[in-house]
Order: sequence, then C-alpha cells, then structure tokens
Amino acid sequence: MKQQIYDCAPGCPVASTLQFIAGKWKGVILYHLIYQDATHFGELLRAIPSIGRRMLALQLKELQKDRLINRIVIQETPSKNIYYRLTPLGATLQPVIEAMATWGNHYNHSGAK
Amino acid sequence: MKQQIYDCAPGCPVASTLQFIAGKWKGVILYHLIYQDATHFGELLRAIPSIGRRMLALQLKELQKDRLINRIVIQETPSKNIYYRLTPLGATLQPVIEAMATWGNHYNHSGAK
Repeated sequence: MKQQIYDCAPGCPVASTLQFIAGKWKGVILYHLIYQDATHFGELLRAIPSIGRRMLALQLKELQKDRLINRIVIQETPSKNIYYRLTPLGATLQPVIEAMATWGNHYNHSGAK
Repeated sequence: MKQQIYDCAPGCPVASTLQFIAGKWKGVILYHLIYQDATHFGELLRAIPSIGRRMLALQLKELQKDRLINRIVIQETPSKNIYYRLTPLGATLQPVIEAMATWGNHYNHSGAK
C-alpha cells in the first residue's frame, strides 16, 4: 500500500498514522507482536478469534509491505519455523497501540455503549 | 454506527477503539476539536483541505451518533452560530489522537517512505 505524507495542515499527521493502522485488525495484530504473546501464524489466529486465516494472511502481508513487521523463517529440518516480528519502524507505534488498548479497555468496562 | 465490545482476548480493546476512529478523517477531525483550532464547519473544511463538504458532514454525523462530539447551535438573530465540541467521552480520546499526531509527525519527517 503506497504510503502518503499527510503534512498539509496541523491535523494531517494523524492521517499519516491512520493509513498504517486503519481497519479492524492491524492494530490488534501489532498489539500481540508488541506484547509478544503471539508471534506465529497459528498463535495469532488463536489470539484474534474472529479474524480468520485468509484475512490474517492478508493483513500480515500488508504490514510487511508497509515495513512495520518482518516475517522470520528459521530452517529447522525437517520443518520450518515461521514467526513475525516488529521492525524498528513498527516498534515506534507502541505508544499509539498502548493508548488505544487503554482507551478500549476503559470503553469496554465503562458502560458507555 | 452500532458500537461493539471487543473484549474477547487481550488485543481486542484496540479494536474497540479503532471502530470509532478508523478511516482517514475522524482522527483528523477529533485532532482539530481537541486543539480547538477549528470548531465551525467552515473552519474544519479549511483545516482539512482534501476532505470535501459532503464527507465532512457525513463524518461529523457519525461522530455525533457515536457520542464523541456534540453539535452546538446558538440562535443569534438573524443568523445561527453552529459549532462542534467534544463530549466527555470524546475528550478521553485525546491521548490516542496525540500519540497518533506524534507518530505521524515523526513519520512525515523521517524519510521512512
């Protein structure tokens, strides 16, 4: 996904960030990679119950293309060990993802629905 | 937009937050209302150069439906003064929007494209 520079006026940097994490899943995937509680494809599939195999594969590919994560392949005969890890650029999103998790947690338990 | 509770697993609160601000414009509109540098429709239209009148009206309506902003109408004969203001719930998104603006600013000036 060709990234744009939104630097036109004061609010535009927010759009620069949203282009990377908009949509329902990328923020959640980044959350798990930041907290390292799920880094393999199967672990991510279990950690994000309603995402589905095809959508998870698609989102991981986009996050790779955007250089936020790397796909690490370790050749261990007879099998391969594949997991995903944040790039330095991806790791800088931690404060954004943390702020979202904090707000979401508060919203979920605040009865504000 | 009927809001959902994403509380299924650790990462899900991030999805709870993203459902409010996903897409290209809501985060930018909230930024301006947080920093009060544009609160009237015309000011927001000028502050967000490429949004367009129809899209701005649509996004403001959704933000109102989600109870993140209020539309304030002050009757001043002969005209009306209409502006938008964050609700208490909307104001709690400030840390998320700030984190996005900071990251976006860094990204815009980091040559990471």
